Amino acid sequence: MSVRLLAHTPDAARVVAAAARLCYSDATALSLMEGLDETKASAFLAHLNRSGHFSPFEHASFTFAVDGISRVCSHQLVRHRLASYSQQSQRYVEMGSVRVVLPPSVAGDAEASRVFLEAAAAAHEAYAKLVALGLPKEDARYLLPHGWETRLVVTMNARELHHFFSLRLCRRAQWEIRDLAREMLRLVLAVAPSLFSLSGPSCVVRGTCGEARPCGRPYASVEELLA
Amino acid sequence: MSVRLLAHTPDAARVVAAAARLCYSDATALSLMEGLDETKASAFLAHLNRSGHFSPFEHASFTFAVDGISRVCSHQLVRHRLASYSQQSQRYVEMGSVRVVLPPSVAGDAEASRVFLEAAAAAHEAYAKLVALGLPKEDARYLLPHGWETRLVVTMNARELHHFFSLRLCRRAQWEIRDLAREMLRLVLAVAPSLFSLSGPSCVVRGTCGEARPCGRPYASVEELLA
Amino acid sequence: MSVRLLAHTPDAARVVAAAARLCYSDATALSLMEGLDETKASAFLAHLNRSGHFSPFEHASFTFAVDGISRVCSHQLVRHRLASYSQQSQRYVEMGSVRVVLPPSVAGDAEASRVFLEAAAAAHEAYAKLVALGLPKEDARYLLPHGWETRLVVTMNARELHHFFSLRLCRRAQWEIRDLAREMLRLVLAVAPSLFSLSGPSCVVRGTCGEARPCGRPYASVEELLA
Amino acid sequence: MSVRLLAHTPDAARVVAAAARLCYSDATALSLMEGLDETKASAFLAHLNRSGHFSPFEHASFTFAVDGISRVCSHQLVRHRLASYSQQSQRYVEMGSVRVVLPPSVAGDAEASRVFLEAAAAAHEAYAKLVALGLPKEDARYLLPHGWETRLVVTMNARELHHFFSLRLCRRAQWEIRDLAREMLRLVLAVAPSLFSLSGPSCVVRGTCGEARPCGRPYASVEELLA
Repeated sequence: MSVRLLAHTPDAARVVAAAARLCYSDATALSLMEGLDETKASAFLAHLNRSGHFSPFEHASFTFAVDGISRVCSHQLVRHRLASYSQQSQRYVEMGSVRVVLPPSVAGDAEASRVFLEAAAAAHEAYAKLVALGLPKEDARYLLPHGWETRLVVTMNARELHHFFSLRLCRRAQWEIRDLAREMLRLVLAVAPSLFSLSGPSCVVRGTCGEARPCGRPYASVEELLA
Repeated sequence: MSVRLLAHTPDAARVVAAAARLCYSDATALSLMEGLDETKASAFLAHLNRSGHFSPFEHASFTFAVDGISRVCSHQLVRHRLASYSQQSQRYVEMGSVRVVLPPSVAGDAEASRVFLEAAAAAHEAYAKLVALGLPKEDARYLLPHGWETRLVVTMNARELHHFFSLRLCRRAQWEIRDLAREMLRLVLAVAPSLFSLSGPSCVVRGTCGEARPCGRPYASVEELLA
Repeated sequence: MSVRLLAHTPDAARVVAAAARLCYSDATALSLMEGLDETKASAFLAHLNRSGHFSPFEHASFTFAVDGISRVCSHQLVRHRLASYSQQSQRYVEMGSVRVVLPPSVAGDAEASRVFLEAAAAAHEAYAKLVALGLPKEDARYLLPHGWETRLVVTMNARELHHFFSLRLCRRAQWEIRDLAREMLRLVLAVAPSLFSLSGPSCVVRGTCGEARPCGRPYASVEELLA
Repeated sequence: MSVRLLAHTPDAARVVAAAARLCYSDATALSLMEGLDETKASAFLAHLNRSGHFSPFEHASFTFAVDGISRVCSHQLVRHRLASYSQQSQRYVEMGSVRVVLPPSVAGDAEASRVFLEAAAAAHEAYAKLVALGLPKEDARYLLPHGWETRLVVTMNARELHHFFSLRLCRRAQWEIRDLAREMLRLVLAVAPSLFSLSGPSCVVRGTCGEARPCGRPYASVEELLA
């Protein structure tokens, strides 16, 4: 899996803080933004974050290039509807070689790995036979394993990212989308730390768990979660 | 594939017509609705439909039970973000026997069918082996073919259904989601004919094609499309 | 203010419960729904509600006719984006007589009431003068007071309604949209009690307050809130 | 009315073009983006624009500071649900002096202007009286005219902007939101010309009108519309 940040709203913390301030001021957003340095913006964002007033966070947008996640993971990802996606098409692009995500549980077991890799190779061979027989790629791919790799460009705003992190960094989420979420959080923390300093599942953000069946191993901090 | 209508807004045509009328009247929606019989509502909806004023169509909602579509098709389906989905989970439900969608192009070719069915069976066998070795179902499924069957409950409002039909009944869409869209259109036409009498791709609705590369075989009518 | 339920998903509790069960079963949604009576559905929904798994609640939809709220209130209302609205147009409908919402704080003060009613009448008189001078209604209305009455048809699904109630039944919301939310909650409780038995601001639902500045008068129950 | 661009996705044309290309290539989005200069990206975007494939346009986001539009206009604006808004609150900010938008039709008529300005001043005077009597600002504002000025921060992506321009630059839209849309189009054209070179109502984009009652004065080009 490779995740990169393709683009993001410049000066995001000041834009979000100015938008939030506008609601309670009689001044233009531009003058509010000019009056905010990074430190003041940070302090104000921490306050919004703690009180759950996330709507101004929507003004900051982040675009990721995601390569090498499975179609299992992309099917989960695109269920987040407040986001934008462009995905590599298996209808138009021919799958020339075996590219499948190996789950860590499988990788850690020699016998399972053998079964897995042989089955993935056999599936791709059957796919290639169908293509060679003249069948449409879009139909031959019905044989490709769910673990087949895909590529996407994904855009989410900072409010949706907080929501995404709260669900997908929880230990109850599947390992692959958790890995993806962790990479995304690392990237946005690097460019907009004050927007994401307090982000993640309920154990990290509120110190409590809302799941019906808690995992029993709450994270103590964002740092632990990213370690 | 099996598609059924689980529920829908009762008296949908009159609800939509009353909402549309409200914008231009000085009367309550309730009195407007009482003043509309099915015939008047139909005439008014035909007018809205032709002039592209679809926002009142959002007040009518339709819930479908979809069984036996492939995960290829469900991955395309859930890209429609103005809709609601509940989908059978492969993380929690064990896949006990081979249930895979056979594309018509494959079914029509003896050699391709043999390759396809053997490969699907082999993939499921490998899946079962991994489960027997104690691996999590959620990881074993990385071997299941994209064509594996799934189940969903899907809710869309009438405006989004029009949009869905315009894209997914076009011959450029893949055959499986076109089959699904056709079943859905049949079902909603049966219970709310005046909401959907003019629905489908641009060739049917406007008599012209907006695609960069037209298919060259435009539909003449909804009837032809459903035949 | 008058709020009525124009339409709603029939048998909503069973539809939602069947959709939720589908995720963890190997059965069709139809058979799951047939296997659920009202009592079983209720028990299951209470479980979903407590654990915050609201996505199946989206399959149930509710359409309201709202008459006689102010444009202050409707401007707040339409900020809820996961909903559908049709609103009476002041561009096309002439405002023939004074119809303005009198805030309770004003109504409780004789001097304030006098000022308010005189000013509202004067504003309407000026509006009528402009219309009589031949100006477009859409421009004359720039003089109508914010409190002027409007009508809407509003559709929300049960998930969004829970979100709406959590924000708009809080004592920090303005009295008018709280009155509206209270009427809406009464109406949906009457037709789908098991979907809404635990609904409202955080004090009611979780027993705690998430506001930065709590009001200090938490509600103990839905009943108290509706009393 | 004053409209400024607070922030936007940097290098938006190349980001959108790379995302669009990803669907049909076997390459990373990053490498596709590096392979695109402004000219190639432009040519590709023109192709997407003409064929109506707008989904990759969602990856580019634009944030505007809007000052001095009326609450009539902001009520229309926030009906666009695929956007983010932060608006100055009349609950918390006291309205110290008369700030009301004068419609051009009124400004062009001496008698109408006199009536309008006197009525607006009288309304504000009544508002101030109520505040002086100790009434909450949030209730006193029920007397402020619809034309009262407000401020917002608005974020839309390029796809929603195209949709917004198609509806709100049509001569059938009210003059104030058309003025706003025109300012917004000017601003995005300056920073991302290839994303918006073909944008506006149906007469400009398709050369035909889809309205039930056409205005009879179609625009010939974006230039005419902006003149």
